Amino acid sequence: MADGKTGLWIVGARGGVATTVAVGLAALRRGDAPAYGLATETAPFAGVDLPGWDQIVLGGHEVRGGTLLDAARELEAGRVLPIGAADRYADDLARLDASIRPGVLVRSGAAIESLADAASVVPCATPREAVRRVAEDLIAFRDAQGLERVVMVLLGSTEPPVDAGALPTDVAALDASLDDAARCPLRASSLYALGAIEAGAALVNFTPCLGAGFRAIEEKYFDAALPHCGADGKTGETLLKSALAPMFAARALRVDSWVGHNLLGNRDGAVLADPEHKRAKVQSKERLLESLLGDAPQSHVSIEAIDSLGDWKTAWDHVHFRGFLGVPMAMQFTWQGCDSALAAPLVIDLVRLMDLALRRGEKGALGALAAFFKSPLGAAPRALIDEMNTLVEWARR
Amino acid sequence: MADGKTGLWIVGARGGVATTVAVGLAALRRGDAPAYGLATETAPFAGVDLPGWDQIVLGGHEVRGGTLLDAARELEAGRVLPIGAADRYADDLARLDASIRPGVLVRSGAAIESLADAASVVPCATPREAVRRVAEDLIAFRDAQGLERVVMVLLGSTEPPVDAGALPTDVAALDASLDDAARCPLRASSLYALGAIEAGAALVNFTPCLGAGFRAIEEKYFDAALPHCGADGKTGETLLKSALAPMFAARALRVDSWVGHNLLGNRDGAVLADPEHKRAKVQSKERLLESLLGDAPQSHVSIEAIDSLGDWKTAWDHVHFRGFLGVPMAMQFTWQGCDSALAAPLVIDLVRLMDLALRRGEKGALGALAAFFKSPLGAAPRALIDEMNTLVEWARR
Amino acid sequence: MADGKTGLWIVGARGGVATTVAVGLAALRRGDAPAYGLATETAPFAGVDLPGWDQIVLGGHEVRGGTLLDAARELEAGRVLPIGAADRYADDLARLDASIRPGVLVRSGAAIESLADAASVVPCATPREAVRRVAEDLIAFRDAQGLERVVMVLLGSTEPPVDAGALPTDVAALDASLDDAARCPLRASSLYALGAIEAGAALVNFTPCLGAGFRAIEEKYFDAALPHCGADGKTGETLLKSALAPMFAARALRVDSWVGHNLLGNRDGAVLADPEHKRAKVQSKERLLESLLGDAPQSHVSIEAIDSLGDWKTAWDHVHFRGFLGVPMAMQFTWQGCDSALAAPLVIDLVRLMDLALRRGEKGALGALAAFFKSPLGAAPRALIDEMNTLVEWARR
Amino acid sequence: MADGKTGLWIVGARGGVATTVAVGLAALRRGDAPAYGLATETAPFAGVDLPGWDQIVLGGHEVRGGTLLDAARELEAGRVLPIGAADRYADDLARLDASIRPGVLVRSGAAIESLADAASVVPCATPREAVRRVAEDLIAFRDAQGLERVVMVLLGSTEPPVDAGALPTDVAALDASLDDAARCPLRASSLYALGAIEAGAALVNFTPCLGAGFRAIEEKYFDAALPHCGADGKTGETLLKSALAPMFAARALRVDSWVGHNLLGNRDGAVLADPEHKRAKVQSKERLLESLLGDAPQSHVSIEAIDSLGDWKTAWDHVHFRGFLGVPMAMQFTWQGCDSALAAPLVIDLVRLMDLALRRGEKGALGALAAFFKSPLGAAPRALIDEMNTLVEWARR
Ligand SMILES: NC(=O)c1ccc[n+]([C@@H]2O[C@H](COP(=O)([O-])OP(=O)(O)OC[C@H]3O[C@@H](n4cnc5c(N)ncnc54)[C@H](O)[C@@H]3O)[C@@H](O)[C@H]2O)c1
Ligand SMILES: NC(=O)c1ccc[n+]([C@@H]2O[C@H](COP(=O)([O-])OP(=O)(O)OC[C@H]3O[C@@H](n4cnc5c(N)ncnc54)[C@H](O)[C@@H]3O)[C@@H](O)[C@H]2O)c1
Ligand SMILES: NC(=O)c1ccc[n+]([C@@H]2O[C@H](COP(=O)([O-])OP(=O)(O)OC[C@H]3O[C@@H](n4cnc5c(N)ncnc54)[C@H](O)[C@@H]3O)[C@@H](O)[C@H]2O)c1
Ligand SMILES: NC(=O)c1ccc[n+]([C@@H]2O[C@H](COP(=O)([O-])OP(=O)(O)OC[C@H]3O[C@@H](n4cnc5c(N)ncnc54)[C@H](O)[C@@H]3O)[C@@H](O)[C@H]2O)c1
Ligand code: NA
Ligand code: NA
Repeated sequence: MADGKTGLWIVGARGGVATTVAVGLAALRRGDAPAYGLATETAPFAGVDLPGWDQIVLGGHEVRGGTLLDAARELEAGRVLPIGAADRYADDLARLDASIRPGVLVRSGAAIESLADAASVVPCATPREAVRRVAEDLIAFRDAQGLERVVMVLLGSTEPPVDAGALPTDVAALDASLDDAARCPLRASSLYALGAIEAGAALVNFTPCLGAGFRAIEEKYFDAALPHCGADGKTGETLLKSALAPMFAARALRVDSWVGHNLLGNRDGAVLADPEHKRAKVQSKERLLESLLGDAPQSHVSIEAIDSLGDWKTAWDHVHFRGFLGVPMAMQFTWQGCDSALAAPLVIDLVRLMDLALRRGEKGALGALAAFFKSPLGAAPRALIDEMNTLVEWARR
Repeated sequence: MADGKTGLWIVGARGGVATTVAVGLAALRRGDAPAYGLATETAPFAGVDLPGWDQIVLGGHEVRGGTLLDAARELEAGRVLPIGAADRYADDLARLDASIRPGVLVRSGAAIESLADAASVVPCATPREAVRRVAEDLIAFRDAQGLERVVMVLLGSTEPPVDAGALPTDVAALDASLDDAARCPLRASSLYALGAIEAGAALVNFTPCLGAGFRAIEEKYFDAALPHCGADGKTGETLLKSALAPMFAARALRVDSWVGHNLLGNRDGAVLADPEHKRAKVQSKERLLESLLGDAPQSHVSIEAIDSLGDWKTAWDHVHFRGFLGVPMAMQFTWQGCDSALAAPLVIDLVRLMDLALRRGEKGALGALAAFFKSPLGAAPRALIDEMNTLVEWARR
Repeated sequence: MADGKTGLWIVGARGGVATTVAVGLAALRRGDAPAYGLATETAPFAGVDLPGWDQIVLGGHEVRGGTLLDAARELEAGRVLPIGAADRYADDLARLDASIRPGVLVRSGAAIESLADAASVVPCATPREAVRRVAEDLIAFRDAQGLERVVMVLLGSTEPPVDAGALPTDVAALDASLDDAARCPLRASSLYALGAIEAGAALVNFTPCLGAGFRAIEEKYFDAALPHCGADGKTGETLLKSALAPMFAARALRVDSWVGHNLLGNRDGAVLADPEHKRAKVQSKERLLESLLGDAPQSHVSIEAIDSLGDWKTAWDHVHFRGFLGVPMAMQFTWQGCDSALAAPLVIDLVRLMDLALRRGEKGALGALAAFFKSPLGAAPRALIDEMNTLVEWARR
Repeated sequence: MADGKTGLWIVGARGGVATTVAVGLAALRRGDAPAYGLATETAPFAGVDLPGWDQIVLGGHEVRGGTLLDAARELEAGRVLPIGAADRYADDLARLDASIRPGVLVRSGAAIESLADAASVVPCATPREAVRRVAEDLIAFRDAQGLERVVMVLLGSTEPPVDAGALPTDVAALDASLDDAARCPLRASSLYALGAIEAGAALVNFTPCLGAGFRAIEEKYFDAALPHCGADGKTGETLLKSALAPMFAARALRVDSWVGHNLLGNRDGAVLADPEHKRAKVQSKERLLESLLGDAPQSHVSIEAIDSLGDWKTAWDHVHFRGFLGVPMAMQFTWQGCDSALAAPLVIDLVRLMDLALRRGEKGALGALAAFFKSPLGAAPRALIDEMNTLVEWARR
């Protein structure tokens, strides 16, 4: 049974999604909010043993200063949070603020580094030191709060992609690399993932960053008998693709081209305006269609930082396809979603499900959670509904 | 094994969909056309024993005059058929034209009656006579062509809905009603369905007409050990709803309103411009959301006859939904599909699958084919992908 | 010179537009708000002598109870007014509330009557009495506030259309009709318009109601040497049509069909959900295209009341047109506008310009203000930019 | 009076637009086609003395091989030309084909050079030689066909932009530069423009190429008493911007961002897929908003080559704007236009109007024709309707 308390440790703890998670949990605890957005609160999960709202304790790493209250006010002004929410939950936010620890910045890229405040960054001579500092923070959190289990969720800004060829190919090489700051190719997200292992925590990688997404580190999770999942939360255009592309496949409609333009104006969007960082996101978004459609259509995905949109992701997709006897047809959609409000409940779903996984002793990449991710680890991307069926089956097992 | 020939008997044999089926089968037989649009040609159906293109023989009923060649030319001009198609398959069309028989018109509604040519309508004193004439035509077709099995497909214009309270409630009452032209509430579509039973044919109801969609007639199918399926082919906006609504449900996104506006300019659209006839179509389209979303959103569906669009159905849907903490978001899509080109391959899929059902001795409403219909008989509407999984399982059994 | 104070008397003074006008004027007076939405604040009007924000004094008639503060809070929750606005301007709203007078309800239609509170309706035995009561309120307002000039703006709910054949055809017949409650075809909007004449006020009809839109009453305005203008503020889809249709005309692109679907969820939308009331609005919207395009395309306009949208009018338009050698092309747009926020600044523009008209001694229907209206009086609808050029010329005269 | 014949000399004579012009003129001559798309055939031009369809004689330069008939067949298959058009006008096309001369390629960029056939390119040692060869061809054309006047229209592929700093600053420097192939910065489009001067022809630059768009060459036109106009035909998204942006300005709606994504699949799109060439087009598209809106919004324009779309330009624009009290609103549009069919009639309009200009002795950049261009020479871009009013006034002068 999900007794005791579970820690939800957020990397990027004053970011848009993190702040929405914090306000949301406060609201859920007080019974203020409907369960909209929370998959684990739908009928199919009715009997599944998951931690309640007050069994989840928040903490996290952050490299920017400021307060969560300010972050919440900004989200309220941007129509992400309900009017009055920041003030109403000011105490909860202040409490969490106090438990946020300075983060580590390693090869994080110029766009992220320019966000950081010196006082909120732990200087580390080597990658190994970064891993150790992360683990120490996690262990201190567990002890201070008396937690049974801890789940780390990566919600930091999008790092540039890592050249796959440069990655250590086995556990030994990985371990060795950590002492050589100059040559270790790992960025902060992977060092956080290693810190989680050392502290015995499960990991959710909600970002397009590398995190635990390479073989050597996956092996370490396996050896440590810890579960992890990722990568890159599936909240907008890609969610729609995973619902729609299977329709074209089912009807043998031949998709010739699928173009997606994404406009976004928040801090995540500003980081993604940097072409190096954007590359990671676009890669994560482009992989999907081929696996869902069999044949890869001509595909184009762009992300543009448009300030006035704030957290309101606006995506336009144009699908050009041929039907019987080759006649060309078209479908377009526009998605106007509030990014943080779409992501936050998934983060809560994921920490509940990873808590279940920890109790069940699952280890390695948890493919059963693929429904939540753009680039699922441990499973090929499938039709959203197929992924959901698998998830429900796994949860009710 | 699917040996011998199977008859595909189309009611509405010179309509847009029927003509596209005829041209399409001719093209498939000559190897001119890719298998776009044909679900039964996708990978999951690879091993299933289905009739080949030249095992399908066409015939049908029609109440309008004109020739299939003219109908094909019109579709070519309207960009439904490839340039040159009408001329290329003129012989096939002429052959089929020769085997089309005058139809029956019973309580078909003013909009349909105004389409009909006296010479193409069989006058019938009673419903029973209509049933008999239909059955005789089917039997003559089977004998003349040496067919193993026959599948009737209803592709006539949309009749007005039938008041459910007026329908005969059991087989005896149904049989009795057929002699009283003044009081029998059945329209032509149901009389065709009864004729199919008498001739030992399976039935596909691709229209929103009543057809075999009431208990007494379903019993007759069961008793006659014949399979049938329907109703109303799922080709456009509803297809999209059945792919998209489950996504909102899976993510616990609360749909507040779903508005769909459909523009259409072909003969089907002209009939639907009559409010009586439109009612049948709108009803068929509105049932879906509640079953897919649990909660019924405010829903509005309109169909407007816009001449300039011809066969090019243009649908705009606006979905207004709330996510975490109640924040309202929106999705819109525009669908620009060629209606006849979307429907025709499904008709071919359905005749192949009904041929399989006949060989397997299936009887009554075939819920396993729900994926093809807006208002499935024998099954509640579900997520498209769940319906497809069921279909594939059934086919590969 | 625009010295002294000008009264802005609003019929429908606690409605959505009226409340936004009240909050907006308060904000402008305090220098809180940018001049967005106000045409009279753009460069071309720079030298024109118009009343300043604190020269405009508000008052009005209303048939519903409640307070302006509540109305403002609701608009704030619906994202029409900025966060915090209701509280910030509570005093201004309370002051205005105190000066709002009960209105008259005459042949207003069931949908409006169901909104009204008995205590806020002045019972009148005859139309003439209604006219008198209205005039008395206006005169009392002018005297109490020491106003130089008064402009009445009709912002009441949309009444059903009046049968043109039943209208009095000259001034004498009009005067005579006012004593016969049973046979006088005039609805409240026209009685308000007559009251304005008696009180020597100018009139703006921002609604699709009849108001002063028939010959006999126009004559009375002329005789009284008073200006009036209307009808039906041009704020959304029609505004776009008047910007876009001239483009098609300029390029000789042949518009075959123009379909507009409007979704709306506020009180105005609820009244328009009644088919009788809706007819007035749709008529007003349909007249435009023919005059702009020369040839009338097939046109369809619908308005649907979709609760979840509140004040956020969402319109989808589909334009199907043919270009060189007849090739068919399409344009679609989606408009997501906040109705009250679009209308309120136009009301302020109009009162300033009507103040100028009063000072200039203009009389009768002021066609120079056509740019503001869907169904302009005194001018045929033209391209928006042509109308604006005329307006600027008139203002700078 | 427009007596005699006028030559229309097209650079890029077998391109998509050119082929559509050729077929279109043939159709107009035979009375097969309505006047859709032709501005000069609308009512305001009724009395203007313009050359008739059979007074316009075609010729041109081209660097690709192939035949116009093949080009027309391709456009017919791509639904640009009516079914049957290629065959119907085969003779006219063959005649024109015979009069097409090999073109010049100078600094045209890799994407264009890869299209060219050696046999269709005139090798030139110096820019001066290119100018001379062009002029000779034009003069031979005039003499052979007995033409009164000749108008050259640039319809070649989009060249990369030319660095403004490198351009010759006066006529003398321009003349001098033509002998130094290595240092002359001019690309083919400008050499064609110089050739036109030498041959006494007027020039229309329908492309985003530099052509006659710099001071030194403008002076030469002036000195030669020849008119020219350009640049970059306004046919799609920019046309819409010039109709819509003035609406926002007229209503004081503050545009925060305007994002435009253009998808295109024809040869023009393929050339634009090359980032160097694309830069010229995007520049031409981005200049507009600031002049129309006063304040420049955040603006983003992309052009993507999507093969399946062929000549069917699909553009999605998202406009984010603020209204009264700062409330943010949005408008989106989708434009599905057939590029060649939109451009071709403008080319015909332009040659007729330039013929008038020649007869009137106009010289230098003709700002009165700004309505046709994205980046007008001799006039700042204004509201489309204002530009049209100026054009009509000029034509009727
Ligand atoms: N919102 C969504 O719908 C969504 C969906 C999928 C993925 N994501 C990903 O989730 C992440 C968070 O998104 P967001 O909108 O909250 O972004 P955000 O920019 O608001 O928050 C990211 C936070 O991470 C912090 N951070 C950056 N590097 C760090 C480090 N090394 N250590 C500690 N903190 C660090 C930043 O200071 C910032 O506060 C992004 O990577 C985004 O791409 C979001
Ligand atoms: N095209 C699609 O995507 C689609 C999808 C779902 C359902 N449908 C339904 O399929 C049917 C056919 O559509 P269509 O576009 O081919 O329409 P259509 O109008 O082109 O064809 C219908 C034909 O049926 C004939 N007909 C009418 N009543 C008849 C009768 N009693 N007996 C014999 N013939 C009769 C008509 O004369 C006409 O030729 C319609 O009911 C339509 O609603 C079509
Ligand atoms: N908002 C826009 O963009 C826009 C554009 C064009 C026209 N209009 C028109 O403006 C009017 C006001 O719109 P709204 O959104 O404020 O509507 P609303 O329903 O919020 O306000 C109308 C108010 O008028 C009151 N009213 C009705 N009949 C009355 C009467 N006889 N005497 C006095 N008061 C009366 C109602 O009680 C209500 O408070 C409507 O007719 C609408 O169609 C609005
Ligand atoms: N179609 C439109 O709506 C539109 C609008 C504005 C501008 N334009 C511009 O018009 C031009 C033509 O467009 P298109 O769609 O016909 O393109 P296209 O590629 O079909 O035609 C261009 C033709 O020019 C030829 N060419 C290239 N360089 C040449 C040279 N130096 N000399 C002679 N011929 C040369 C090419 O071989 C090709 O046949 C492009 O620059 C395009 O950007 C088109
Ligand atoms: Na892009
Ligand atoms: Na409608």
